[in-house]
Amino acid sequence: MLLARMAPPTTDPEALLAAAQAGDRSALARLITWVEQGGARARSVGRVTFRHGAAYTVGITGAPGSGKSTLTSALVSQVRAGGDQVGVLAIDPSSPFTGGALLGDRVRMGAHVLDDGVFIRSMATRGHLGGLALATTEAARVLAAAGKPWILIETVGVGQVEVEIAGAADTTVVVVNPGWGDAVQANKAGLLEIADIFVINKAERPGAAQTRRDLEQMLELSMDSSGSSGSSGSGWRPPIILSVAVAGDGVTDLWAAIGDHRRDLEASGRLEVRRADRLSGELRHIMAARLLERANAATENPEFERLRDAVLARSLDPWSAADQLLGIQD
Amino acid sequence: MLLARMAPPTTDPEALLAAAQAGDRSALARLITWVEQGGARARSVGRVTFRHGAAYTVGITGAPGSGKSTLTSALVSQVRAGGDQVGVLAIDPSSPFTGGALLGDRVRMGAHVLDDGVFIRSMATRGHLGGLALATTEAARVLAAAGKPWILIETVGVGQVEVEIAGAADTTVVVVNPGWGDAVQANKAGLLEIADIFVINKAERPGAAQTRRDLEQMLELSMDSSGSSGSSGSGWRPPIILSVAVAGDGVTDLWAAIGDHRRDLEASGRLEVRRADRLSGELRHIMAARLLERANAATENPEFERLRDAVLARSLDPWSAADQLLGIQD
Repeated sequence: MLLARMAPPTTDPEALLAAAQAGDRSALARLITWVEQGGARARSVGRVTFRHGAAYTVGITGAPGSGKSTLTSALVSQVRAGGDQVGVLAIDPSSPFTGGALLGDRVRMGAHVLDDGVFIRSMATRGHLGGLALATTEAARVLAAAGKPWILIETVGVGQVEVEIAGAADTTVVVVNPGWGDAVQANKAGLLEIADIFVINKAERPGAAQTRRDLEQMLELSMDSSGSSGSSGSGWRPPIILSVAVAGDGVTDLWAAIGDHRRDLEASGRLEVRRADRLSGELRHIMAARLLERANAATENPEFERLRDAVLARSLDPWSAADQLLGIQD
Repeated sequence: MLLARMAPPTTDPEALLAAAQAGDRSALARLITWVEQGGARARSVGRVTFRHGAAYTVGITGAPGSGKSTLTSALVSQVRAGGDQVGVLAIDPSSPFTGGALLGDRVRMGAHVLDDGVFIRSMATRGHLGGLALATTEAARVLAAAGKPWILIETVGVGQVEVEIAGAADTTVVVVNPGWGDAVQANKAGLLEIADIFVINKAERPGAAQTRRDLEQMLELSMDSSGSSGSSGSGWRPPIILSVAVAGDGVTDLWAAIGDHRRDLEASGRLEVRRADRLSGELRHIMAARLLERANAATENPEFERLRDAVLARSLDPWSAADQLLGIQD
């Protein structure tokens, strides 16, 4: 009768958050799963965690293989050396075979798995009703409410949504490798726009000095045209740090640069401005997600099948079908 | 009085499409710009082009630097050698400095720029109200209506939206390089799911044979679990082609494999099933886009500022604010 004596898992977000704050990792994991799933339960979690203070978020982004996971792991060590707890959100492509995210980043973070002050979560890139960006924002808020004052968000820096997520952090670190100047496809412009700090990782390889000159030249151009660069507003010039993350070289420089940027944002009042902008954007995302729920509900209407069949038969175009289903008159 | 005698540019989609069909490239470019911009004009273009037949679409996806642009350019030559016209949509990160897409792919396609039978368009990855996937679908339909029986869609195969777009083609080619097995981050699972054909490009590099064995093993596993692989449904096993695209090696093999896959889809009836599924998905995307227009309209409501300020002051949570703005009761 062991089962009968066990308390059923709670479904109350307040109680789960209290458990997470007391160190219950499975409660924390469940809260993040709920915000990933969207819908009414995600909203109830959001309402509870919104009342808590924000954590300082650092986005780390770069192409596959650039070494950003190794750098993220090294930053976890830096935060822990200062005595603070830290949450890590790794935005990984989802696997259709396992139904979940790849374990790669968690394996790479192995050294931190046994540390109770570190909570690492891989987030699937698909299946978020309100979009991955909104799910990541909500997951970061859960971690903050659970008592993590630092949150590291690691994303693949290629792709529309992934760059947006990294750029929405308080401090955004863009990781490149020597020779990136060759790859026109590497989304240089998009990454320049969001970078508060550049890291040239694998700096022992040929071409590091040239890559540094290329970056400096691009920063000159963008400072000339706007009086500033990065997303910080005027005054901050993104530093360029050379690192060999696997050997630990450059990590303390990066950590110091993150501290400099944080102090700059706080002293100038731009941290509050930046966070207010993000909250406005979040409100728009939430509105869109609510409307998408309604669109999905409309597909359960028997009319949906009838009108879809008319579209398939090309007797109706999909724009007219959508407006009929939604009751919109042009 | 030269200006007075010039006809103003037409704003009628029917007239523009007729001009595009007659070879007017600027008319074709303008139609695609309109579908990129979304809104009522995009819908009017969609209604006109929807009445025309579909083209055969080939998605080419891979990591930055994998050589997919070189392969795409070689495929353009193959289509042209057969006498058909071809449209190319290159999904590029947008540049905030130029306001448009990077020119890289167009430069690389230089050999085709003077060929009237080829139309190449870089699409910005941001600023699409209904999403990049919907804008790409509509742009492909414009090219088809303008008389291109083949459309190649090249995307960076990293990122949620970009993989979705490539996977929505009739035939999807996934380009990898020797050694990709090392990069856990390379979204292997997501790419396996959408691949109809694999190309190991830069096959002269060490590790090509090992990469082929890795891919074959992954295909075995997925064929075992589902009885098929790729998105084709049962019966088709994605071939693995080795290429050195810069030297032209392997390109005719790839072109032959695309033809094989097309014949397999057509003979089995799966082409129609696949296209019907895509059209159902498009209808959902269109409904979501229409609702997003409404969410944006709601942000122009004076109430939006008042409620946003309440959220910023933390006296209201954003979920409650969204529901108030949208008139939704939970």
